[in-house]
Amino acid sequence: MFAVTILGNNSAVPAFDRHPTSQVVTHDGNNYLVDCGEGTQIQMINYKIRRSKISHIFISHLHGDHYFGLVGLINSFSLLGHKQELHVFGPSPLKEIIDLQLKVADTNLCYPLHIHTITEAATLLDNNKLTVKCFRTNHRIECYGFSFAEKRKLRKLNPDKAKEYEIPQAFYDRLKDGEDYTRKDGTIVKNEWVTEPGVAGRRYAFCADTKYDESLIPHIQGADMIYHETTYLDNLRERAETRFHSTTKQAATIAKKAGVKKLLIGHFSSKYDTLEEFEAEAREVFPNTDLALEGVAFTI
Amino acid sequence: MFAVTILGNNSAVPAFDRHPTSQVVTHDGNNYLVDCGEGTQIQMINYKIRRSKISHIFISHLHGDHYFGLVGLINSFSLLGHKQELHVFGPSPLKEIIDLQLKVADTNLCYPLHIHTITEAATLLDNNKLTVKCFRTNHRIECYGFSFAEKRKLRKLNPDKAKEYEIPQAFYDRLKDGEDYTRKDGTIVKNEWVTEPGVAGRRYAFCADTKYDESLIPHIQGADMIYHETTYLDNLRERAETRFHSTTKQAATIAKKAGVKKLLIGHFSSKYDTLEEFEAEAREVFPNTDLALEGVAFTI
Repeated sequence: MFAVTILGNNSAVPAFDRHPTSQVVTHDGNNYLVDCGEGTQIQMINYKIRRSKISHIFISHLHGDHYFGLVGLINSFSLLGHKQELHVFGPSPLKEIIDLQLKVADTNLCYPLHIHTITEAATLLDNNKLTVKCFRTNHRIECYGFSFAEKRKLRKLNPDKAKEYEIPQAFYDRLKDGEDYTRKDGTIVKNEWVTEPGVAGRRYAFCADTKYDESLIPHIQGADMIYHETTYLDNLRERAETRFHSTTKQAATIAKKAGVKKLLIGHFSSKYDTLEEFEAEAREVFPNTDLALEGVAFTI
Repeated sequence: MFAVTILGNNSAVPAFDRHPTSQVVTHDGNNYLVDCGEGTQIQMINYKIRRSKISHIFISHLHGDHYFGLVGLINSFSLLGHKQELHVFGPSPLKEIIDLQLKVADTNLCYPLHIHTITEAATLLDNNKLTVKCFRTNHRIECYGFSFAEKRKLRKLNPDKAKEYEIPQAFYDRLKDGEDYTRKDGTIVKNEWVTEPGVAGRRYAFCADTKYDESLIPHIQGADMIYHETTYLDNLRERAETRFHSTTKQAATIAKKAGVKKLLIGHFSSKYDTLEEFEAEAREVFPNTDLALEGVAFTI
């Protein structure tokens, strides 16, 4: 499974039962948290997100609505007996802020916490399943988006065929990697005789807070799904520009120009009590748009 | 009106739809916030607390479940266009923590914020309606309780009597203060002929986090209502002692020895999914005990 579950979709202040930014990217049994506004740990309880499965947290920038829930979550993990390492990525001085608050409370965490400072576009995580990269967005303060790319899937083995060609099971992993098999007599079993092509890795990108900026496109080009903020409806372009935010049609234009398959929109201003117009306006430009509604898990 | 509304009654981590510590003391149209755990601003929305009426916030200590919601609230006040001064009282380094987070976000508040550092028992606020004092409690880190004392009520004027004695209206306020009135001919109208005794000022005390400690008693003696924490049921006295917390019967014993009229108990451990036993145990020692249930306004 590769999905993103929305925990908060509002900007700045909580309103209309909408919460500040947070979402969970779930991939192959692991949870990766993206941003952590105030109340994220409560939203996790509400939506039954398994906190114990969170090993990495990515913070886009240090406006409060994107990280004021982080120190509480770090603290609760310890009180709940979290054991495994927790890696947090975010711009400076996130580490200083968290360390100060833990020190003041005389807190000794019961698990290893590593806070990594992001300073530029980089690869943050690269394991055998997933690559997570960050990229700069165009916001009032230093801010990063995050892209999640599944590793290219292994080829799909046909076990009946493999048996037919008398290939030992110990070689199966190498078949999945695309290797041919060479028999003792020197004859070759071509990989494509016993396997089928795997599916290409899927990609999701979180574009954080940003004004309209086409320099984001290379980082999200062709993604299966992106999240792009739409703080305002399109009649407030000027305000969006001044405040380094985007409108519905600007987000949809980025999605269209980047050739992505699906767009999620969120970070709605508290000016708006209802959201239908956001969906309608964005879909005029990019039909496959959905509102990033809280509690909904979108499969990538 | 003099009342306290509970916004959060749980300890440490949010659980069972209970939230970290926060309560609002309402007196004569003003709201005084006591502690501000994560999510307090959302609880204020849930329970229709008028944020614009909050002029003072008192933070007992710097364990996260008592203040992680503060910076978000300060920030939201600004985004919502708060105008009047806000005074925050708490132990060091609260000011440093808040200032750092505001600076990092490049936030300029649109109202004057004053963060006052508490270092010892002191009078924090003394206006013509209310006196707020802080006192040390016995916790793992520096921690303060807060007492709210109404000023002694003015004497109650009988306007018919005052007219009968031909006292000019301009003198009425001085009558309420207890003065006699001297006529031009030198004869005296005794104050008690035209007024009745006022009601004595009421008192509420918030005892914060603390282990059982009778040194609190002088600060809460005879109060109309106190809040005392009961993190554990009474069978966990040892654990309470180790963690600088109190049990049901310990809280009730303090209330009884201090001769208060009513006891509220809260700061329940997340070990407990239900709370009936808390009430039952405390009432064995001090019958006029209520659970500090969230959303309930207790009239003092």
